[in-house]
Amino acid sequence: MADQFSTFESRLDVRPDDIDMNRHVHNSKYLDYVLAARYDQMERCYKMSMTDFLKRGFSWVVKVAHIEHKRPLGIDDSMIVRTRVAELHPRGVRVEFEIAKTADERISAKGFFEYVMVHADTGRPALIPEDIAAAYSV
Amino acid sequence: MADQFSTFESRLDVRPDDIDMNRHVHNSKYLDYVLAARYDQMERCYKMSMTDFLKRGFSWVVKVAHIEHKRPLGIDDSMIVRTRVAELHPRGVRVEFEIAKTADERISAKGFFEYVMVHADTGRPALIPEDIAAAYSV
Amino acid sequence: MADQFSTFESRLDVRPDDIDMNRHVHNSKYLDYVLAARYDQMERCYKMSMTDFLKRGFSWVVKVAHIEHKRPLGIDDSMIVRTRVAELHPRGVRVEFEIAKTADERISAKGFFEYVMVHADTGRPALIPEDIAAAYSV
Amino acid sequence: MADQFSTFESRLDVRPDDIDMNRHVHNSKYLDYVLAARYDQMERCYKMSMTDFLKRGFSWVVKVAHIEHKRPLGIDDSMIVRTRVAELHPRGVRVEFEIAKTADERISAKGFFEYVMVHADTGRPALIPEDIAAAYSV
Repeated sequence: MADQFSTFESRLDVRPDDIDMNRHVHNSKYLDYVLAARYDQMERCYKMSMTDFLKRGFSWVVKVAHIEHKRPLGIDDSMIVRTRVAELHPRGVRVEFEIAKTADERISAKGFFEYVMVHADTGRPALIPEDIAAAYSV
Repeated sequence: MADQFSTFESRLDVRPDDIDMNRHVHNSKYLDYVLAARYDQMERCYKMSMTDFLKRGFSWVVKVAHIEHKRPLGIDDSMIVRTRVAELHPRGVRVEFEIAKTADERISAKGFFEYVMVHADTGRPALIPEDIAAAYSV
Repeated sequence: MADQFSTFESRLDVRPDDIDMNRHVHNSKYLDYVLAARYDQMERCYKMSMTDFLKRGFSWVVKVAHIEHKRPLGIDDSMIVRTRVAELHPRGVRVEFEIAKTADERISAKGFFEYVMVHADTGRPALIPEDIAAAYSV
Repeated sequence: MADQFSTFESRLDVRPDDIDMNRHVHNSKYLDYVLAARYDQMERCYKMSMTDFLKRGFSWVVKVAHIEHKRPLGIDDSMIVRTRVAELHPRGVRVEFEIAKTADERISAKGFFEYVMVHADTGRPALIPEDIAAAYSV
């Protein structure tokens, strides 16, 4: 991952209900792991939790999600989810991620999300306030 | 099922993401099937959709859920979900359900939910208005 | 969508457990809708169900998933999921999809999946047998 | 909880994808939390992981689940899941659980599961081998 912005890490465990008929983590759950990591990092690393966002009347909405699967995670696995702001726009942000298996540090999946900021009550696009842009510019 | 109140039916298909490592529907998903059936029946049979409830400032909250599993559903199965109001109280309702496999009508699971009505904004218990109690007394 | 291969449709309803805190369908669930549509179409349109695949010792694994969200689906929505084989390779297939809201036919999301065929027991890549390639070339 | 058998604890965080339209943890997810706690405790406390079970050709199947909801968990919550073998039968086990919010130790939900042991390949009931019964009798 490039380095204009910081890369942050969260640690998560696979949950049994994430496993599908192939006895690996179900493909769409990886996106949920990244979401969980972002929530953790919003609060812990950017000091601006999702609850803080909602209180200010804002929310984030996914515009694009892209994921490449390299190696499946299984029932006994835990993972490190690394995310990084790759681009910061007036109305949105592009976040790159990778998920590594804790045991051997090998990459399980990687990709990116494009989020736009919206007014939580109407769902309409919002301009990212300066202090939020500043908080994300670390 | 007894017959003071009507029993209603909804038809649902198993979705691939419902299947777990045992290659059957994951146990907690059966509760989601009943929830889906209730939403369908609220709108179609009681003429009072969940959206109507929310617009009036009410929501339903699960107090108790009880389920007995008889025969698992698999990836190719569809089901009939039957529910019935078993008891109607000033602040809540007990709903009995059974889930039958469409192919052979055999029971896959049965049980009950106890719901209480709440004010949607505060989550605090509400008295069920008379017109709603009447709508459920069919 | 282009037209070398056929486009098939499946109809699905939003389930209440798909809704997230923003009161729309949760972003990762759209991928599950496409999966459900593919299973339906494998059986109904390609005459080769996932169960048939598993019996022959094969399974499909997601290598890449890409989705662009246009308009959210809500609790009362049903949808039409259209998928089409865009490319057929010796070891995999690229499937394009779009999800339209039934009520107004407007596009809710679109994107593509890249799948590879694997031996179900080992998870290792497999060459797509000719009869399967033929079944998909419609 | 009574005390013939030991009570074990697991710590879990709420995941954003667990939250439903009421902005609390979705009711069926609490059952998944208990499942996750049991998997953790099978490995860590009983020294017999689910993977060990599967390798010996056994699996556990839910026969009955019963849950009473006391206080909802929210997006920022973490929890302590306590489980205890309440009864051990030749073919199954009854496990009682309670879920407490980490922040204030108040009970969010409690209930029980009845599991039966099955042969993993056929799904048919199995007699619990003596060494497994012994491992659970702590």
